[in-house]
Amino acid sequence: MHANHQTPTACFIIIGNEILSGRTQDVNLAYLAHILGSLGISLKEVRVIPDVERAIILAVNSLRSEFDYVFTSGGIGPTHDDITSAAVAKAFGVKLFRNPQAVRLLEDHYRGTAHELNEARLKMADIPEGASLIDNPVSRAPGFKIDNVYVLAGVPKIFQAMVDGLKSALKGGPPILSQTVSCNLPEGKIASGLAAIQSRYRGVEIGSYPYFRAGMFGTSLVLRSIDQIALSKAATEVAELVHVLEGSVGVLDD
Amino acid sequence: MHANHQTPTACFIIIGNEILSGRTQDVNLAYLAHILGSLGISLKEVRVIPDVERAIILAVNSLRSEFDYVFTSGGIGPTHDDITSAAVAKAFGVKLFRNPQAVRLLEDHYRGTAHELNEARLKMADIPEGASLIDNPVSRAPGFKIDNVYVLAGVPKIFQAMVDGLKSALKGGPPILSQTVSCNLPEGKIASGLAAIQSRYRGVEIGSYPYFRAGMFGTSLVLRSIDQIALSKAATEVAELVHVLEGSVGVLDD
Repeated sequence: MHANHQTPTACFIIIGNEILSGRTQDVNLAYLAHILGSLGISLKEVRVIPDVERAIILAVNSLRSEFDYVFTSGGIGPTHDDITSAAVAKAFGVKLFRNPQAVRLLEDHYRGTAHELNEARLKMADIPEGASLIDNPVSRAPGFKIDNVYVLAGVPKIFQAMVDGLKSALKGGPPILSQTVSCNLPEGKIASGLAAIQSRYRGVEIGSYPYFRAGMFGTSLVLRSIDQIALSKAATEVAELVHVLEGSVGVLDD
Repeated sequence: MHANHQTPTACFIIIGNEILSGRTQDVNLAYLAHILGSLGISLKEVRVIPDVERAIILAVNSLRSEFDYVFTSGGIGPTHDDITSAAVAKAFGVKLFRNPQAVRLLEDHYRGTAHELNEARLKMADIPEGASLIDNPVSRAPGFKIDNVYVLAGVPKIFQAMVDGLKSALKGGPPILSQTVSCNLPEGKIASGLAAIQSRYRGVEIGSYPYFRAGMFGTSLVLRSIDQIALSKAATEVAELVHVLEGSVGVLDD
């Protein structure tokens, strides 16, 4: 995407040793990216950092001034390694306090279950001062929003439910549209023609991705833009280029 | 992992609009993390950034002084959106030049194929001055190493082959060992006992990860350390804690 002042920007901070060790495969990035794209918000950077207070404070404070939206995942559960809420409070220089509204959510959730609302679970009601709660329809323990920072759970099912609940409150620009031209040509053959098309369509971002699938190789040419007409024209030119080079165009999706 | 001067640190810069748009799911992080862990190198941060020169220069220059090793993936192919090599050259303030050794690799590769070594493909031989080549056994176009920065391909098959080839040249510390205690207890029940164990084993990093699988919920307790004896002792205490709380321990892996 070329510079466009109508398109708000976002970054995503994934907090979790389990992602950095390779034990857990993150799936939240792709989910968030798709939602943001459909809302017309451009995800510009992702950081994966450990459950370390200093790392969280540094990342939150350097990124919240740089991007319109900052989302975080992970570290808001009941165990000793869940330190995100406290670290975010420190990043903003505010107190962490036991939020009565969050306590009520947890009381309602645990009442009538076999589980007690013990001190560890109550820790999930400790929220930075001035933050507003983000609904967790799965297991109740809330996320929170402070300024432009949205602190969400790491468990994918809960993360996704929180993002779904937030959608209507996020202000985006025009939706980011995309069109893919799949072809059976190698990247090296199509590169110069593609560069020429890119140079004529500054408002369309053209990405080239080689693939090897089911014994077949080829290239996916992905075009993204907020301008539907320019997108269609550029995609047509790309498809024509493939034909001129004696390739064939596969599925056109999105 | 607590501060340990024996353990070199690494970060990983994933360069690619296709990851930020959610179109492509990264799988290189987990692969690299496992290899580094086995080599005794601790992956401390990952950044996903767009194919934008300024973003690449900023990330490379801020991270190469902070970590012992910096790995990048993506943006070294033949198309217009492949700008990583040029951006890394700028980050180091050196020239990009057509590396004769890389040209020979490409000549050997394309000779006798139906494909010509055109200008777009020759671009893959443009390497920063002072860099050494990294072998690509899959499709020949090399990666490169400049100072402590290792520039690798984004296509997973090639990325993995490059990492495999590099392994013996990376100097690590003692391998980072891990042990997982899986149990059928919710995090909130085990949290306070777990915190107590963590406080007694400073050299063991204990992570707690709730899971919902096949209708079952539970918690995976992941212990990591370079100290085998402390690791085993701590894992035994965690398993005992589960029994005291009337839970049962599942698979103990790694």
